[in-house]
Parts: sequence; structure tokens; C-alpha cells
Amino acid sequence: MTESEHVTVATRELEAFVKNVLQCSGLTEEDARISAEVLLYADRRCIESHGVARLERYVTELKTGGILPRAEMQIVHETPVSLVIDGGGGMGQPIAYRTMQRCIEKARTTMICLASIRNSNHYGIAGYYTLMALSAEMIGISMTNSAPLVVPTNARDAIIGTNPISLGVPAGQQQPFLLDMATSTVPRGKLEVKARHHQSMPDSWATDEEGLPSTDAERVLDNLKNRRGGGLLPLGGGTEETGGHKGFGLGVAVEILCGVLSSGAVATEVYGRQQQPSGVAHFLGAINPAAFVGLEEIRQNMDRFLGMLKASPKATGQTRIFVAGEKEYDCQDCTRVKLPLERKVFETLNRVGEPFGLRLAEL
Amino acid sequence: MTESEHVTVATRELEAFVKNVLQCSGLTEEDARISAEVLLYADRRCIESHGVARLERYVTELKTGGILPRAEMQIVHETPVSLVIDGGGGMGQPIAYRTMQRCIEKARTTMICLASIRNSNHYGIAGYYTLMALSAEMIGISMTNSAPLVVPTNARDAIIGTNPISLGVPAGQQQPFLLDMATSTVPRGKLEVKARHHQSMPDSWATDEEGLPSTDAERVLDNLKNRRGGGLLPLGGGTEETGGHKGFGLGVAVEILCGVLSSGAVATEVYGRQQQPSGVAHFLGAINPAAFVGLEEIRQNMDRFLGMLKASPKATGQTRIFVAGEKEYDCQDCTRVKLPLERKVFETLNRVGEPFGLRLAEL
Repeated sequence: MTESEHVTVATRELEAFVKNVLQCSGLTEEDARISAEVLLYADRRCIESHGVARLERYVTELKTGGILPRAEMQIVHETPVSLVIDGGGGMGQPIAYRTMQRCIEKARTTMICLASIRNSNHYGIAGYYTLMALSAEMIGISMTNSAPLVVPTNARDAIIGTNPISLGVPAGQQQPFLLDMATSTVPRGKLEVKARHHQSMPDSWATDEEGLPSTDAERVLDNLKNRRGGGLLPLGGGTEETGGHKGFGLGVAVEILCGVLSSGAVATEVYGRQQQPSGVAHFLGAINPAAFVGLEEIRQNMDRFLGMLKASPKATGQTRIFVAGEKEYDCQDCTRVKLPLERKVFETLNRVGEPFGLRLAEL
Repeated sequence: MTESEHVTVATRELEAFVKNVLQCSGLTEEDARISAEVLLYADRRCIESHGVARLERYVTELKTGGILPRAEMQIVHETPVSLVIDGGGGMGQPIAYRTMQRCIEKARTTMICLASIRNSNHYGIAGYYTLMALSAEMIGISMTNSAPLVVPTNARDAIIGTNPISLGVPAGQQQPFLLDMATSTVPRGKLEVKARHHQSMPDSWATDEEGLPSTDAERVLDNLKNRRGGGLLPLGGGTEETGGHKGFGLGVAVEILCGVLSSGAVATEVYGRQQQPSGVAHFLGAINPAAFVGLEEIRQNMDRFLGMLKASPKATGQTRIFVAGEKEYDCQDCTRVKLPLERKVFETLNRVGEPFGLRLAEL
């Protein structure tokens, strides 16, 4: 079996399969539907690392108490323009989905709503929730903390999460701007690819057990697994000379907006206890364009600006300048009815479905 | 004269000198006072690149029409939680100061106020305005676009600004968190230091006239000056492999919040016309802690979180983990009454003051 071997499945069937597995794992039908939709959306946008490939992990956590399938979300604090939500240790996707929905509703009349959410779990791709705001013709914000995988500048151990930042802004003729970026240089998945191919990695990706930049992906992954120190580097790499302290600062900012403003878990507190909810925290927001110059002007300004960027002369050897989100929009257009899955992922899905008598067919 | 030669001046006298020069250049007394305060604040925090060393440039622009000394700020649009401001081409510091003051006042009752500001000018350090929010026991946000100096991933030319992002969050026993970072790997000033010493620079800092990473600072600066292509690289460097597209995405996000939401200038439109106001745009915000879990809980959460970060084991060879803003707070404590100035800066200040009969004394 080669790494690149793929099978093709029907998108609709895959979505139903994922939903059924999650429902059999204890989620309500509605929560299972939302979770499946968020996971499928990642695959549709070619962000396979955050799509159905994660189903096994969710099912395991639903079984072992990492995710509480029937948790109740609570509004801890509310003002006309803000929310503090306690997710009760439930599934991340429905918690974030319902919070964003409420932010959008509130922003229709109050112009802005920002929400800080504690006691949630992994919520899939950050960009899904900004896309919800874009669908409502609003500006969207989405951030989350995560398991501690990133080493602060000058530190030895992984202390903060990969902490993605997502911002979505509507455009007119152009595709909307959709930033969705981890604040580490790369996600762990990129190290796994290097390790599988026994290739060395750039020294701005990760550090070894002494906290020094390393090019040995297998060693770093092994250290992380056995908590021997080291981990992923913040955007900018391992030194202040290359701006690593800036990526670290952004990662800390995300921890604050998610975990501090909600009195939730931060840094090593996230996934800090075995077989208990992870405490992952999020920050979501919707901004009504009417708070500023209004939707139509914003659309026109975006088209002019994004057009300028894309028409600008290319570096030698390059043919295209990509604006955040563009690659994923390109991908999304061509994969509506069928989806390619790595054979390994396909087989794992069927293994996960088997106890529930659920089976996914190859096309 | 060596580069490191410094003279010492009285802080209060320096501030009065800067204020008087700006007033003689046409600003109102109040605008001159605010501008001097913002500039001095940078020097007090050891961010000399954005302090009084920039006075000559401001005075030149006030003379040639780049900054309109008696411009009137206008509120273009206002909601309970937002502002769109037109600065009328005036001095950046008083425009940003007054907007942030208004954001803070509004957020006292409406919890959140975000402002997008067009037709302003260089506003000094981004962090000054977040510090205003911190002084009012609020969370502060400050961003600005700037002259186009940064090359998008895959592009040849500098198209977007260095576009700093600042976020300030109050703490209790710990110093507040105060992020203030350009979204380029380094500012132009760092290239100038390398050029003066004929040293090569890391290849994540800048590109040459073909848009390819360069280690030759003199060449890059010369290209920028003569608009031959190339420029500073976004945080993360020149390739997607090292995350350069993420720094580029952040820079674009700042242009959008500042220039798009206000219908102001973006990218190469900023400083796009000779001897006319630059069109620099800002984004400022104040968030009342009562929008979330409240000031006291946030202070406690921050102390716990920042304490965790700083107590964490250090990388081999390192003795301290710095949280954003900490180095500047350390510096600030020891430079209250007197300030060191590079002799070259001191001499320039006196040359600028001479036509107005103003003189700054060396202690």
C-alpha cells in the first residue's frame, strides 16, 4: 500500500456514515448532524487533517469520558455584545456552532458579538465558524486553544497550543478573504510526513528535548509522545532573530481570548487530566458590516484590494499570488458529489463503524 | 563618532522640546502635546525606532503637505459599539489618541467599541493606544497599515505594509500582556543595522529585486529606495514551507480592518501620492472586561497563566521566558527622569529645532 493510494466515496454517504457513527456513540441526532457537517466541510476544502480522518479519535473520547456526549451548554454571562459559554465538556463542533449562530443573531441588531467559550473540546477547522458568519454576510472571527504542542521562545517544553486564528471578510466578485492559520510554523501532521519519509525538516519547525531547533522529525515526535521536552515552534521559528517571539505572542493572545476571558483552561491545563473533558476553549465573533462602512462598500473595497494583490508582479519562478482561503475555494469547487479518501482513512472509518453495524462503500 | 555613542537628556525637557517643535510646525498645542507624549512613550519603553528619532520626518511632512497640521477629524459613521473616523490627513497620534479615548468611553457603557480610521498618518507605536485601554482597565486593540514595504508570498514587489498588531490585556501581580508586533519578520531598521556593519542577514528577512530571498541587506535597501522590486518578508519568511503565507495573511487582515472597513487606503495606495496625505489607516478597539468574566477574574486568570509560562523549564542556554511587553516594562522602570539618545538623533533634533529657535540641552 503506497501513501498516495486513495479510494473514492460519495460525499452524501460519507456524511451520513459519520453522523450515524457519532449518534451511535451517544450524541443527539442534531449534535451528530452538526459535527458531521463540520468534519465533511474540512474534507470538501481539502483540509483532510481536520476532517473525517479524526472520527476515530472523537469516538474514542466519547467512550472514555474525554467528550461528554450529552453535556449541556450554559450561558455563564451575557451582554448585548458578548457571551461567556460553558460547554460542559461536550462535543466541540455543536458547542461552537450554536455559539456562532447566537453571535450572528445578536450581531444583526447589536452590530458586534464576541463569545469566549470554556469546557469545550476539539472543534474541527477554525474556518468553519468564520464561514458561518460569511454565509450571513458578516465578518467572522474564530480561534481555539488546543493540546500543548508549541514551545515558547527560550523554553524547553511544549506549553501552549497550536492555537489557530481565523478571520473571514466578505468580498464581491472575488472569493471572500478566509484566513485560517495555526500560530505554530507547521502542524504536527507535517512532521509526521517528514518522519514517514525519513526526511529532515527545516529548523524553524520544531525543537528537540533540550529546546534547541532540530531537523529530526522522528526524534521530535518521539519526544512529544513520551513528554521528554521539545515540540513545535511558533510561527517565525526558534529565535527572536527570525521572529519566533511574535508567533509565540500570537499563540498567547489566542490562549487569553479563549481561556482567560472565559475562566477556562489554558496552556498545559488543556488535556491536562486523563479521561476527563479536555477543557479546550474557543473565541468566536460576528461583526455586522453595518458597524463600519456597510456591506456594499466593504465588498467593493475588498474586490479592489484583493485584485491589486493578485495582479501584482510575481517573483521569478512563480505564477500566482494566493490570498488566504483561495486554495481551499479552488479545491471546494471540484469535489461536490464525490470525495477522495486515503485508503488508510477509509479502512479506519469502517473499523470504527463496525461495532455499530455501519459500513461505508467504496465507489 | 561610533554608532553606540549616546548623550543623556532630561525626559521632561525632551518632551517639551518635541511639543514645541510640533507646535511651531503648525499643530495646535493640544495636538502637539499628545504627539510628543506618544513619541516619548516609545523612547521610555526603549523602542527608539518609533520615538523622537522620527521627529524630523514628521516636521518635513508637516511642511510638504504629507501631514495637514490643522485637519479636522470627522465621525463618518457611529453605532453604540463602533466608529468610522476620517482623519482628514492630519497628524496620526492625535487622531488615534482621540479615537481610542472615545472607544474607551463608549465601552464603559456598551462593553465593546471598535473603530476603523481612514485618512490618518503614521501614528507612532501601536502599543501606545492599547496602553490607553490598559490604563482604563480594559482590553485594548491597535493596528495600522503603513507604507508598502512587505512582499506577499510568491510576489516580486513590496505591496502591503509592515502592519503591526497590538493587543493588551490587564493582569494582577504580573505586568499586563502587551503584544506589539509588526507582521513582517523584521522592520526595515534591522536591515539598516546589517547594512551599516556589512553583515549578511537571515534569508527569512527580505527578498531581492526578483522576489527571491536575499541575505544582502545593502542590496535590498537600495532596491526598495529605487523601487526596483523586493522588500521585507512577512513573518515566517519567503516560502510556504516556513509559514511565510501566514505572516502575509496576517498583514492582509490588518489592511482589511484598517483600510477596507473604513473605505480608506490599502496596500500601495498608502503613501501613493507625492506631497499629499499618506492615507494611513488604523483599527482601534476597547473591550470592557465586564463583557466577559469581569476584571477581577481576568486578572487572576492572567496571573496564573503568565506565571505558568514564565516558570516553565528553559531551553539549554536560556535563563528566562519573556512574555510580550515584559522587556519593555523592564526598560521603562529605569528611565524615568533621564533618557539616553544616540548622538546622531540628538544632533538631528537640534537641527530640526534651530529654525524655530528651539534648542535641546545635553545633561
